[in-house]
Amino acid sequence: MTVMGKQGIRHFEASADGTAIRLLDQRALPSTQVWLQLRGVEAVAKAIEDLAVRGAPAIGCVAALGLATAAQDFSADPATFRTQVNDALIRLAATRPTAVNLFVALDEIKRALARTAENADTASLRALLRQTADAHIHADKMACETLSRNGAGRLPDAGGVLTHCNAGALATAGMGTALGVIRAARGMGKRFTVFAGETRPMLQGARLTAWELEQDNVPVEVITDNMAGALMAQGVIHAAIVGADRIARNGDVANKIGTYTVAVLCRYHKLPFYVAAPWTTVDLQLRGGQEIPIEDRHPDEVHYHGASRKTPENVGVRNPAFDITPANLITAIITDRGVCRPDELAEHHEHHEHHEA
Amino acid sequence: MTVMGKQGIRHFEASADGTAIRLLDQRALPSTQVWLQLRGVEAVAKAIEDLAVRGAPAIGCVAALGLATAAQDFSADPATFRTQVNDALIRLAATRPTAVNLFVALDEIKRALARTAENADTASLRALLRQTADAHIHADKMACETLSRNGAGRLPDAGGVLTHCNAGALATAGMGTALGVIRAARGMGKRFTVFAGETRPMLQGARLTAWELEQDNVPVEVITDNMAGALMAQGVIHAAIVGADRIARNGDVANKIGTYTVAVLCRYHKLPFYVAAPWTTVDLQLRGGQEIPIEDRHPDEVHYHGASRKTPENVGVRNPAFDITPANLITAIITDRGVCRPDELAEHHEHHEHHEA
Repeated sequence: MTVMGKQGIRHFEASADGTAIRLLDQRALPSTQVWLQLRGVEAVAKAIEDLAVRGAPAIGCVAALGLATAAQDFSADPATFRTQVNDALIRLAATRPTAVNLFVALDEIKRALARTAENADTASLRALLRQTADAHIHADKMACETLSRNGAGRLPDAGGVLTHCNAGALATAGMGTALGVIRAARGMGKRFTVFAGETRPMLQGARLTAWELEQDNVPVEVITDNMAGALMAQGVIHAAIVGADRIARNGDVANKIGTYTVAVLCRYHKLPFYVAAPWTTVDLQLRGGQEIPIEDRHPDEVHYHGASRKTPENVGVRNPAFDITPANLITAIITDRGVCRPDELAEHHEHHEHHEA
Repeated sequence: MTVMGKQGIRHFEASADGTAIRLLDQRALPSTQVWLQLRGVEAVAKAIEDLAVRGAPAIGCVAALGLATAAQDFSADPATFRTQVNDALIRLAATRPTAVNLFVALDEIKRALARTAENADTASLRALLRQTADAHIHADKMACETLSRNGAGRLPDAGGVLTHCNAGALATAGMGTALGVIRAARGMGKRFTVFAGETRPMLQGARLTAWELEQDNVPVEVITDNMAGALMAQGVIHAAIVGADRIARNGDVANKIGTYTVAVLCRYHKLPFYVAAPWTTVDLQLRGGQEIPIEDRHPDEVHYHGASRKTPENVGVRNPAFDITPANLITAIITDRGVCRPDELAEHHEHHEHHEA
């Protein structure tokens, strides 16, 4: 695996014969680079559920490519093939509920198949699945580049920029969202240091964000999540930027648990709080954040640190994977369609649709 | 070891022959109860530095009792004995800089010795050290009971109470400070649930607070520190209460890293934020929090989770053990001398001194 700057990190790809997906196991990072070979829908679904791959855009990409590769083993009979694809769509949709990009990718597949002739042969259906997946992945990569360029000017010229979780190359098919903006800003010559909140319980910040940025020679320091406030009070942090798993029409944002706390801290310290995401993360069907389904994950993610259980027997934990940051705490949402205030999102969309038409 | 409710947890005591201190190793909790036998000043100092015992009041108690037991092995020559005590005071004072209770305890010993006749024999000096330590421990235990009673009425009748780190029996010689108030409030029939922030990096909340409360049948749930904001937004938390390592004259409070973030979250959500501490934690010599020394601890506390390093090689971390919560974010400070607003602290002291005189 090579790190390719603007090209991102190639952390998933189809196997040479196209019947499986090769996936860099993000659970083993940063200490070990383990490549998984996922063959079949169930293997892909499990990899998403178990966080071998995570990050809203990346989940959509891997689901689409995973289905396209798994379909190589589906029936030669077109009707059976279509049934298998539908079953696969249902299985993949059941993996993780919060990130909307997964459902966008699955919908693209559904619509592409719906447009085919009823008597299309399975070879052409297979090719269509692969084209649809490749197009989704390419679009995500382009969206990362565009939004990163769009947002770069917003970050401070020096000082400290806080990010939470991993909204980087490992979360997308490209250079990342929040980390894409950070990379683009550094590319412009800005000289801030990145503070990566470690992001309990799964430590995507400590493990993935720090790893990505260190390889790109972006200065990065890891902090425990509870240090963010103190560093802001000390004047060490000048802005925060995060990704998103789903954005409602009113600009409310679902993102990794802890994002809301960062947003409140930014408001209290009068610091800008940015959300960076491809437009595919915007779910215009939802009026507000309260309609975004929040995934509760297994309690053991909180109970255990490495191999050792830290909480007493008989004591319960909470483990929501995401929280909702209301639009009023967000300075701007940075997308591949431009940068806007969260309350301008719906308007921004209509304007864009008008111009595209 | 037994849990004794209002009596606290006997987690340290002199050995039967009085020449060592038996200490419950808090690093091994909650999974294992390991008792250390500490003989000599260096062993006691190391136990404090390495967090075998922690918690501002407990550190003072263990330092005093540790010195008294170590002095059993000091010279029979009074002049040499006094030199050894002075060296011990210097060594113990160098263990941890932030909690003031340690320095209060060491000062008590210094002053007690200064009051003795120059020709006092070592047997009487040894007895004096032990009496001084026992008195310090007894006073801390009484202070816990009094402040807990003083503060109990402040907590809500139901709902959720957030605490951070461990300000419990394990942090004191008695029933605890923040957890003492919680115990007293539960004893009054209040029915709230406690949310224990796990308290990265050392997890005193997940390991110690949860363990203490579970044994006392106080309903407790562990959360990662970054969940506090989301739970407040959901209306699940109704107040927060924490301990303190040092309180400046103006009411600024040094406490475990993350405390400041909790205080900001409380302010944003219009929830009361209480600090509970024995009066010995108040350092009237310091005008404000900026004068409180903040300990930076070893980076590996952040790098490692259990036995596994989670951050990449070459990436740095920050690890301040404490932060400063300014007086204006604190609803009230609960002490054994009563409950007051942080800005009334100095006045409260003068009033008390006047009445005591």
